[in-house]
Amino acid sequence: MEKSFGDFKGILIVGLGLIGGSLAKALKKEGFKGKVYGYDLSKDRIKIAEKQGLIEKGFTDFKEVPWDKIDLVVLATPVKTFEKIAKEIKKHINPKTVITDVGSVKGDIVKTLKEIFYPNEFVGAHPIAGTEKEGVENAVEDLFKNKKVIITINEETENTQKVEEFWKDIGSKVEIIDPYLHDFIFASVSHLPHAVAFALVDSLINLSKEAGIDLFLYPGGGFKDFTRIAASSPTVWKDIFLENKSAVLHSIDEFSKSLEKLKKLIEEENEEELIKLLSESREKRLSLEE
Amino acid sequence: MEKSFGDFKGILIVGLGLIGGSLAKALKKEGFKGKVYGYDLSKDRIKIAEKQGLIEKGFTDFKEVPWDKIDLVVLATPVKTFEKIAKEIKKHINPKTVITDVGSVKGDIVKTLKEIFYPNEFVGAHPIAGTEKEGVENAVEDLFKNKKVIITINEETENTQKVEEFWKDIGSKVEIIDPYLHDFIFASVSHLPHAVAFALVDSLINLSKEAGIDLFLYPGGGFKDFTRIAASSPTVWKDIFLENKSAVLHSIDEFSKSLEKLKKLIEEENEEELIKLLSESREKRLSLEE
Repeated sequence: MEKSFGDFKGILIVGLGLIGGSLAKALKKEGFKGKVYGYDLSKDRIKIAEKQGLIEKGFTDFKEVPWDKIDLVVLATPVKTFEKIAKEIKKHINPKTVITDVGSVKGDIVKTLKEIFYPNEFVGAHPIAGTEKEGVENAVEDLFKNKKVIITINEETENTQKVEEFWKDIGSKVEIIDPYLHDFIFASVSHLPHAVAFALVDSLINLSKEAGIDLFLYPGGGFKDFTRIAASSPTVWKDIFLENKSAVLHSIDEFSKSLEKLKKLIEEENEEELIKLLSESREKRLSLEE
Repeated sequence: MEKSFGDFKGILIVGLGLIGGSLAKALKKEGFKGKVYGYDLSKDRIKIAEKQGLIEKGFTDFKEVPWDKIDLVVLATPVKTFEKIAKEIKKHINPKTVITDVGSVKGDIVKTLKEIFYPNEFVGAHPIAGTEKEGVENAVEDLFKNKKVIITINEETENTQKVEEFWKDIGSKVEIIDPYLHDFIFASVSHLPHAVAFALVDSLINLSKEAGIDLFLYPGGGFKDFTRIAASSPTVWKDIFLENKSAVLHSIDEFSKSLEKLKKLIEEENEEELIKLLSESREKRLSLEE
């Protein structure tokens, strides 16, 4: 069966970073027949994308985009730039153009973008994919292949189905989740572990000062695995923590309760309850290996 | 140069678990010329060790051990059994026999054992090595090769130097650290990360209940790496948390302070200080890769 990519004919990718660039590369590889255009502040990135044949043409000014040919806009810049870009794009888009994004935080921002773009339809999406590298120059054509893409909507429409088809034809596994539940989930399984890893390394810096020795000379017992994610980009994570603030703070509070519970059991030398807590965590963690 | 293994001629390994068994295997491989005897509650383990030629002979009763031939006793049972075993052994040992151990907690227990064995000398040691497996049947001859062995003493004596030589000839890298500093270090770099990992999984169990979904279906962003150590043995870790109680509680408190600091910066949307904290953690973590 021929792929339809949601019947979109002209796509504008806003932001030729790793995700935007990889999306252009994936469309080319998977046989998208329409036109792909790019927008970026950097002329260098546009040049790279044009040279590799990933985009038909790139622009640094939204006024120059051939808007009559665009029926899908993909926001692939940092989440905090979405609102400003949306207000700019809004002036140019066709009445039927669909807007989507690849941001990792949804909830409030989806609500805001829906309002800005109305009566055009904004369909939020979050591909669970990435590498540590940045920029179109590091784009990977199979970045989204067999990876989850979460479409954050409350009800299906013709346009949300088109965005679903678009990602399925790229090779992703689409899942539909409410925008706020999406933020709760990722606050718990991704943002919380990052917060904990950053805090853990911070506490070891302070404990080192206290003892007058460099504790980082004794990394054992899974410590390296455990703190690997503390080497993630401070700018990216500062943004994520602030954009998903309320869900992140809630998950940190829940974690603090669990740690306080564990601490109390150690203080009271409550062997029975201690074994119970450790065993439950162990079983749950082992179930992930399957 | 011929290896001396600290000039010990007859060694009794108390506890034929993974560490005790691997020590017997390493002695054989590295060419120890003296006799190695074993003690264990399990006749099966003794049989395995005898069959593999790892020990001269094994015993389930301390009364049967040929004490006149023993000049080094290595305690390789769980730390919480040390005190009881020490009081039993004390009745039998020669006036010059040296006692050492392979336990992962030092401070108070070293003090207690020194007192019990006096005037015999107890020299605490902690090989930083292990696998997830248990028992002499899973023993590994190179378990201690190029691994750190921490000798926890406050001053060198003839006997501590002999124990140092013993481990060096097995192929380990010996480091000398005060017993209480040892516990502070491992509370920070090993016990704290384990406590945090167990608490993290516990909080995700609770957050799953709150949301009515299974958050463990969305493990992304380093989460698997991060919580791997939460699959460690509950019994072993219950013991470690309790035996190193005061240092563990102190490190948890320090970690909680760091997490509270991070939480406050997110709450106040203090971008500058947030970037600073994340960057410092990142740089420290990256320095480990070298």
